[in-house]
Amino acid sequence: MPRELDEVIPDLSLEQKATLASGADFWSTKPVPGIRRITMNDGPHGMRVVADIGLKSQKRATCFPPAVGLGSTWNPALQREVGEAIGREARALGVDVVLGPGINIKRSPLCGRNFEYVSEDPLVAGSFGQALVEGIQSQGVGASVKHFAANNQETDRMYVSAEVDERTLREIYFPAFERVVKNAKPATVMCSYNRINGVYASQNEWLLTSVLRDDWGFDGVVVSDWGAVVDRVEAVKAGLDLKMPTATGDDRVIAAAQSGELPEFVLDRVVSRLSTLAERADASRLGPVEVDFDAQHELALRAALEGPVLLKNENAALPLSEHGSTRIAVIGEFARTPRYQGSGSSQVPSTRVDNALDALTELIGNRVRFAPGFTFDGDAEADAALADEARTLAADSDWTVLFLGLPDSYESEGFDRETIELPANQLALIETVSAVTRRVVVVLSNGGLVETESWEFRARAILEGWLLGQAGGRAIAQLLLGRANPSGKLTESIPVKLADTPAYINFPGCDGQVVYGERIYVGYRYYDTRGLPVSYPFGHGLSYTEFEYSGLSVEAAGDGASVTFTVTNVGDVAGAEVPQVYRSDRHSAIDRPKHELVGFQKVFLEPGASETVTIELDSRAFAYWSISRHGWIVDEGLFTLSVGASSRDLRLSGEVRLSAQGPRQRLTVFSPIADWFADPVGAQVLQGAIAQLPDAHAFQLDPNTNEGKMFAAIPLGHLLSMVPNAPSGAAQQLVAAYEELSRGA
Amino acid sequence: MPRELDEVIPDLSLEQKATLASGADFWSTKPVPGIRRITMNDGPHGMRVVADIGLKSQKRATCFPPAVGLGSTWNPALQREVGEAIGREARALGVDVVLGPGINIKRSPLCGRNFEYVSEDPLVAGSFGQALVEGIQSQGVGASVKHFAANNQETDRMYVSAEVDERTLREIYFPAFERVVKNAKPATVMCSYNRINGVYASQNEWLLTSVLRDDWGFDGVVVSDWGAVVDRVEAVKAGLDLKMPTATGDDRVIAAAQSGELPEFVLDRVVSRLSTLAERADASRLGPVEVDFDAQHELALRAALEGPVLLKNENAALPLSEHGSTRIAVIGEFARTPRYQGSGSSQVPSTRVDNALDALTELIGNRVRFAPGFTFDGDAEADAALADEARTLAADSDWTVLFLGLPDSYESEGFDRETIELPANQLALIETVSAVTRRVVVVLSNGGLVETESWEFRARAILEGWLLGQAGGRAIAQLLLGRANPSGKLTESIPVKLADTPAYINFPGCDGQVVYGERIYVGYRYYDTRGLPVSYPFGHGLSYTEFEYSGLSVEAAGDGASVTFTVTNVGDVAGAEVPQVYRSDRHSAIDRPKHELVGFQKVFLEPGASETVTIELDSRAFAYWSISRHGWIVDEGLFTLSVGASSRDLRLSGEVRLSAQGPRQRLTVFSPIADWFADPVGAQVLQGAIAQLPDAHAFQLDPNTNEGKMFAAIPLGHLLSMVPNAPSGAAQQLVAAYEELSRGA
Repeated sequence: MPRELDEVIPDLSLEQKATLASGADFWSTKPVPGIRRITMNDGPHGMRVVADIGLKSQKRATCFPPAVGLGSTWNPALQREVGEAIGREARALGVDVVLGPGINIKRSPLCGRNFEYVSEDPLVAGSFGQALVEGIQSQGVGASVKHFAANNQETDRMYVSAEVDERTLREIYFPAFERVVKNAKPATVMCSYNRINGVYASQNEWLLTSVLRDDWGFDGVVVSDWGAVVDRVEAVKAGLDLKMPTATGDDRVIAAAQSGELPEFVLDRVVSRLSTLAERADASRLGPVEVDFDAQHELALRAALEGPVLLKNENAALPLSEHGSTRIAVIGEFARTPRYQGSGSSQVPSTRVDNALDALTELIGNRVRFAPGFTFDGDAEADAALADEARTLAADSDWTVLFLGLPDSYESEGFDRETIELPANQLALIETVSAVTRRVVVVLSNGGLVETESWEFRARAILEGWLLGQAGGRAIAQLLLGRANPSGKLTESIPVKLADTPAYINFPGCDGQVVYGERIYVGYRYYDTRGLPVSYPFGHGLSYTEFEYSGLSVEAAGDGASVTFTVTNVGDVAGAEVPQVYRSDRHSAIDRPKHELVGFQKVFLEPGASETVTIELDSRAFAYWSISRHGWIVDEGLFTLSVGASSRDLRLSGEVRLSAQGPRQRLTVFSPIADWFADPVGAQVLQGAIAQLPDAHAFQLDPNTNEGKMFAAIPLGHLLSMVPNAPSGAAQQLVAAYEELSRGA
Repeated sequence: MPRELDEVIPDLSLEQKATLASGADFWSTKPVPGIRRITMNDGPHGMRVVADIGLKSQKRATCFPPAVGLGSTWNPALQREVGEAIGREARALGVDVVLGPGINIKRSPLCGRNFEYVSEDPLVAGSFGQALVEGIQSQGVGASVKHFAANNQETDRMYVSAEVDERTLREIYFPAFERVVKNAKPATVMCSYNRINGVYASQNEWLLTSVLRDDWGFDGVVVSDWGAVVDRVEAVKAGLDLKMPTATGDDRVIAAAQSGELPEFVLDRVVSRLSTLAERADASRLGPVEVDFDAQHELALRAALEGPVLLKNENAALPLSEHGSTRIAVIGEFARTPRYQGSGSSQVPSTRVDNALDALTELIGNRVRFAPGFTFDGDAEADAALADEARTLAADSDWTVLFLGLPDSYESEGFDRETIELPANQLALIETVSAVTRRVVVVLSNGGLVETESWEFRARAILEGWLLGQAGGRAIAQLLLGRANPSGKLTESIPVKLADTPAYINFPGCDGQVVYGERIYVGYRYYDTRGLPVSYPFGHGLSYTEFEYSGLSVEAAGDGASVTFTVTNVGDVAGAEVPQVYRSDRHSAIDRPKHELVGFQKVFLEPGASETVTIELDSRAFAYWSISRHGWIVDEGLFTLSVGASSRDLRLSGEVRLSAQGPRQRLTVFSPIADWFADPVGAQVLQGAIAQLPDAHAFQLDPNTNEGKMFAAIPLGHLLSMVPNAPSGAAQQLVAAYEELSRGA
């Protein structure tokens, strides 16, 4: 808990308190007596320490795989290691708070910043966030989990209002943050730019106080995204502690504090939290640290090896043969000039960069020949010549590895994409090359997903490499040659076409608002519920070996369930599998997705080896959020738990019966007559009242007739409003009688 | 305009005024000095005059085709005739106000009351509503267009909150009402049960006053749906004039009037409007009327002939041969026991009912043999025997006509459907019958649509008969035999499966709210924009003849355009076609559907005959609603106008260039820097301000770089909030300077 105020800061003036609520400059707070300056820097996948407003850093740092790549490892232990390594560099640089990780849900593949986010699924995103924050904070520095909340696009990001119902927030957009807050206790949470149902996140008391602090127990500092505060006074009132950057607007806060518009205890809250942060995020207490950049790079490589997702691998096209005289054509500028991170505030000035071409050459020598194939900027004349060269090379090679992807200008913080297609010159190149050879392998480098449906039939294998950080090129080379075995899994579904995506008709909105019309049906929750085909499903990812699932046992345990099963590596090489547990609820009182991921675990297995996995599921794995009952509800009945290798490759299935959990439904004047009769106490109350009515017979309709059904659906209050001479308040009196009898019962 | 108060009602007491705001009983108002009792009765497709709360009427009336059938005629002149006929019966029965028509949009095929509604398209629904109201009111009685607004489901209809953005209301759910109010001046509008964004329609001042009266000029009475008022005082304040039924709660209104909570002028408004209604809806001024029920039935038959939609007709399976010895098996209980209207408040006690079996027998004698085929209530044992009998009959006939559909218990006012499939016993019957004969024709009787994908390949022809009123059976017989030519067109798309429907993941909501997440993308607007396959597209309907389209000319005309083209009957029999005009807007500043219906006209043509059709489009045909500019906007540029026989059978296409219309966008503190620079005056103001900044260079980013794009998207106010030492209010000052310069410019 934040320390008591009077313990530490007995005599700050109102002005000093007020000025604490904003930054001194772009990257630090104002020191006041008793509370030191706190510095913050970007760093979701590596440190970016800059002097001013600009995005270019002078201080080199290790660029680990961005969230899209690191998230695809589905390996929290590895993610935690990366967090530690980032924390170590932050500590060495004297940074108090690392501004990351970003864990917003990938609502649409068009979001320009998806490379900084993890998944379309809140469990995958939250598990990643927890691992990163734990890792970073183990080094004594603070983390800043961001962007809270519903910041799922770049278009109009600073003022767009996400129009989204509370259930969707609670079930989809909040849980990753909730998991991080509850399990990893981040020093800070960064609020987002956007509005939520009309209210800026930075000024949203429900968001920053009721949900974040009261419901989840957050006791750290809420910092604004840079420039996210519109009304300084409203923001402080809502629970925002620190407006970044710069002190602009402090005069407003001071005036409001002086006039009493802003109560002093609200500013005291800010002081207390910043004081606590100054202590928590003080790495100096752990002593000095040396960073071994070689070791950091080796970790970046290990992380990069587990990220790529082997989408397809016809007739075991991969791994490429290392032996013999196989001539390999490496085609595509990305092999030589890797794209390994995204544009914007997360850009790290890497200590070094491996490229796949050099790494391959290093490993198998001059059997590798290269042609760039296309230009990043789409110069038509140059592209034509490069395609000719590439065709000749491919025709003269045994295998062709095409390095395709999205050039830097195609995606960035700050704007969204308009298409999920690869650039036209690259699509043309696949066609050109595949016309002269069927032995084509495609390696992709992209932050946001790209569609594969239009060209995947031209490739025997596809390795989706996402963005992999500074060691990504070397990782790809090792995977292609089978020196490592792909184990990445899709954290987002790859749709057949953009028009199939859940937010297609609503993204990115218009006129300053975006309707989250697909509600809880994001990603596979949408595709699987609607039965829409996808190119590659959520959770999918092949290996150079194969895994068998067996021996499922599902048992009720506490308020939840325990799922046990065995995974066996039935192939010839070592590899890792990520068995996933999905829960289905077909008896729920309200609509739910066909199934939802509730657990997963990465399992590393030597050939022939087995591992028995147990995954414990708590009651939340079964619950939905009810806005009318304001809580998490488990409806009594059977749930199906399925285990498999993707949301569409479920191998085992079992059932468990749970009892009802959560606040129970109470009868009100708005409850339909049917609900009153279904409740024993309600029925007793209502029968008594009806007996006294002159038209009592009208209430005796057969519930199996259309007329009876119509009648049964009328809320009590509405019904009585039609009864001639019913006194005002009659319905309220029945509710009071019900409440009293219920208490007695 | 409603008359001035002091003209008529000089001396009503406060109590008298207050009591006017509610009904005396279930079907009439309270008379007060100077204002007579006004009676209201159900009647969207025929009169239902009952004495009390029950739904059974003792007074016979003509049952015309319900809205689903009459709407499918796409013939406003015919719809107007039906309106006149309904008005005539109302007049004869002494009814002052006919409670209909219902023109809510068919948002989901599951809505149990879709048979009472017209279309998924607001133009089709509004055109129908206008014709009905004009017809009814031509007889001196009033109409009550309903249910205003966003009442698109039966589940929780009395308290569910339709969560729907204003643009969607203005473009999809309001325009039918707007058209009727502006063009047909209905005596009353009936508000719906549901809430809209949390506020009951009956208590929604924005809905009942700002939109209905201020924007559209409605000057009649707003009456509540029966039982729709929750808070009597809030309702009167919001603009609801008449709470129905019964006077329950008058005490609250009187007390509020006495205490001043309810200003007296608000009650005076009610008095004035009811006084006007008593005059407007006084059919007695037109003298007595005789109803010729034979003539009414003949009109019901004419209306029923134009409703059925010929979905498919392989190798001209229809019409059935009238001559020779063709033996026809008529199978299906619906042929003998027609389903011709829906359940609930719209149920008419018909004067007589034609069935198809008798009508066919009458026309072609004993070549017709009948088997019921299945039971309505799905008795498994009986169904098995009936299917056997049907198979035998089909095997021994030349052609089999299967009369399938939804029994009464499958759909009704008061509850929604859960599936769009035909009952299992009927699906089994199609299979059984089609196993012994390929010469199968299916005739459907259903209020809500049914899926056809799973069985349509078993039928050579499908005639979708909807619900057709009391003469429907005779109409179907004439159409099957070619004595009349089908000319109905689909007013709603028939989806491949329920999971494809736009509201699938949101309908009917939960926990008291339903999110209109598909927004403006309802019906074909959704399917066509997403490129989803449908079984039969909106606007589709075959004929026994064929039509050619030619000679399109598109010209700008006023604020809109004029579209001229020629339709020719190139077949051998007379028939009617409904050419449809769709508008596409690809350059709009905001997202829009692929295309939208903006005009149609039914054309009757003898074989070989041509008609040149001109359809005038006003500016609204091109406009979208902007919530930020609060008005209808036409963006400058080219629009495509396509003409065809369905939304997916467009035969002709032309373009027209329109200039910008509607309130223009003004720069604000929330306008991005890019917008400021794009506006000449804005750029001038901003350049001046930037020149004075110490960091002026930071504003000179190349807009083609990722960093430059990111910068350009920052709103002015947000940007200045990050500039060190920028004074509070700096952005507001720039806006003021812009406004002043703009006025000068």
